Amino acid sequence: MQNFDYQTPTRLIFGKGVITKLPEVMKQFGSKILLTYGGGSIKKLGLYDKVRELLDGSEIFELCGIQPNPKYDPSVLEGVRLCKENNIDVILAVGGGSVLDCSKAIAAGALYDGDPWDLITYKTIGKASLPIVDILTLAATGSEYDPGAVISRTETNDKIGYMDSNNYPAVSILDPTYTFTVSKKQTAAGCADAMNHIMEQYFCEDSTLLNDGFMEAALKSLMVNARKCLDNPEDYTARAEMMLDCTYGCNGIYSLGNSYSGWPCHGMEHALSAYYDITHGEGLAIITPRWMKHILSEKTVDRFVKYGTNVFGIDSTLDKFEIADKAIAETYSFFESIGIPMHLKEVGIDESRIGEMAHHVAENEGLDKAWAPLTEQDIAAIFTASL
Amino acid sequence: MQNFDYQTPTRLIFGKGVITKLPEVMKQFGSKILLTYGGGSIKKLGLYDKVRELLDGSEIFELCGIQPNPKYDPSVLEGVRLCKENNIDVILAVGGGSVLDCSKAIAAGALYDGDPWDLITYKTIGKASLPIVDILTLAATGSEYDPGAVISRTETNDKIGYMDSNNYPAVSILDPTYTFTVSKKQTAAGCADAMNHIMEQYFCEDSTLLNDGFMEAALKSLMVNARKCLDNPEDYTARAEMMLDCTYGCNGIYSLGNSYSGWPCHGMEHALSAYYDITHGEGLAIITPRWMKHILSEKTVDRFVKYGTNVFGIDSTLDKFEIADKAIAETYSFFESIGIPMHLKEVGIDESRIGEMAHHVAENEGLDKAWAPLTEQDIAAIFTASL
Repeated sequence: MQNFDYQTPTRLIFGKGVITKLPEVMKQFGSKILLTYGGGSIKKLGLYDKVRELLDGSEIFELCGIQPNPKYDPSVLEGVRLCKENNIDVILAVGGGSVLDCSKAIAAGALYDGDPWDLITYKTIGKASLPIVDILTLAATGSEYDPGAVISRTETNDKIGYMDSNNYPAVSILDPTYTFTVSKKQTAAGCADAMNHIMEQYFCEDSTLLNDGFMEAALKSLMVNARKCLDNPEDYTARAEMMLDCTYGCNGIYSLGNSYSGWPCHGMEHALSAYYDITHGEGLAIITPRWMKHILSEKTVDRFVKYGTNVFGIDSTLDKFEIADKAIAETYSFFESIGIPMHLKEVGIDESRIGEMAHHVAENEGLDKAWAPLTEQDIAAIFTASL
Repeated sequence: MQNFDYQTPTRLIFGKGVITKLPEVMKQFGSKILLTYGGGSIKKLGLYDKVRELLDGSEIFELCGIQPNPKYDPSVLEGVRLCKENNIDVILAVGGGSVLDCSKAIAAGALYDGDPWDLITYKTIGKASLPIVDILTLAATGSEYDPGAVISRTETNDKIGYMDSNNYPAVSILDPTYTFTVSKKQTAAGCADAMNHIMEQYFCEDSTLLNDGFMEAALKSLMVNARKCLDNPEDYTARAEMMLDCTYGCNGIYSLGNSYSGWPCHGMEHALSAYYDITHGEGLAIITPRWMKHILSEKTVDRFVKYGTNVFGIDSTLDKFEIADKAIAETYSFFESIGIPMHLKEVGIDESRIGEMAHHVAENEGLDKAWAPLTEQDIAAIFTASL
């Protein structure tokens, strides 16, 4: 078991109707608010009007139009400018992981004198960030309970995931009913994203009985509940269980004391969505079973045996490689069964830039130090197998 | 799934050798420290000298002699007096759950003008507490990661568990090597305490797939690792896994969104250790299987089936009451196998005060509102079956 240093200061306010606590929550941080959101789905939901009504009397500035795979330019830069010019006290992010990630980069940039890109690339470590409150509308990334953000810069094909301990949201307001209108495509992609967060932590050298059981339970819960959400988008319990499963995703609590895995699928997927702006969860679902097949070896097989028997109930008396193969096939089939396009070509990616992307990943993601190390050639082979 | 509002601000610094971070940790809170500890085992461990050496230059006051089932008088009162007279900045609790619980009551009492008993009995809600840093030497209560404390008052036979959100430790320093010298008796009792914390949350009306899996994994981990600790007290991995399993015990994370169970075994055990000052974990282990047997019914049986099949691997094709009976027998056998005396008479409790204790519990613990409600007669019957 590895040493660790862990703290999550975020307050989770979870459940139907909890938005009524918003005024009390916001009051503690100040009255000048930057409200951030995406393409307007929160207006269709009625959530925009509800927020404005609850915060009547506060001074609210707005940054809207934050895109999936949120962009440094214009969103982060524009948000930082708004915060600095208006002496914003607190950011209220209403949306999914992209809105929240963008808001984290803004919150740090607002209290930093230099170029906010310095913080994203660890050129410097931020000393403080504006407080962030979020109202989540998508179960997927776990950004509501972690210090991470992923920001894309179009002109350089960079999609950078980074951590900043100042970036934990102060309060996350999690009402599963706000996810009732999430499309089947985004529900499935959110499930795949959250499952991959867990797998990235599960497939490592050194884990504990507790962590393994916790993660196996989360994977099973995500599969059961995502299916229920797809069958009946307004199944409250299923939406709620899925939301909480996702919330723990990148917080670290699934794997305290585990050795580091390297998060290889995220490293590879970030190139796909940086170069082609695809849906992150779909990219992960496509890559994951191909990565599994590629790294299966005498060294890794026991981990796949545990995964296969405990998550999919595969007969433990079979040969270990047979169990592993079945586990990988079950992973693929599950993603396919919830409607995810399982080939890169289906999401508009062909072989033309595989070499370039593999090179970018090998240069930037440190996957040579992953649990199952990957060279540039390995990465290219996984991309090719995913076509 | 139930609504919840959850936040744990405690920083966990976990692993071998992490005490070297102590000076940096303490510095942020101030230089006037109240060092609290128990009967001197930390001196035998060398931990006392290590702490004094690391904090050389700070102004350290001491409260020693804190007993198991920590006492309001003299320990809490004396600690509060020391804090007030010396303008203490921070409490450093070195020991197990009793030292920590006592320190929590002191930390709150130090910033309260009235009788600290008001805070323990919810006569008033404290507005603030001194910060607490702890160095844990026993895996059991989970006090290192929760806002609760249990304080006993000898003259009234009160043993009161209460929560105060100001009482989360600021930092918990968790080095499993400090538990290498914990006796077999206390190792087993700590395991039973932690297992009961989980069972108190598991046996409820409404749980989630994730929580069930998390708790089942924790129960299995505790059983496996406690056996290893008993066989080889210096098995680092086993001590470490057991320590983390215990740490989550009363934090709420095992059951976010679950309905409230009423914590019936704790309600009953608190009377046993208030009247007879027995070891808390032993009292819990004795009561638990008798409580299970007493509440088993058509209404509760499905929960026992899940527990029995998932924790003990009992054949799920058997009749449901047969599974439940086997699960209860397995629970009893496990506790017995790790050396816990499984009858009240073995820990010095006879039938003479059962009526009085049952009355006290019925009056004070609200068990008529538990998942499986208990009357005074039920409580007396469970005590009698435990003799």
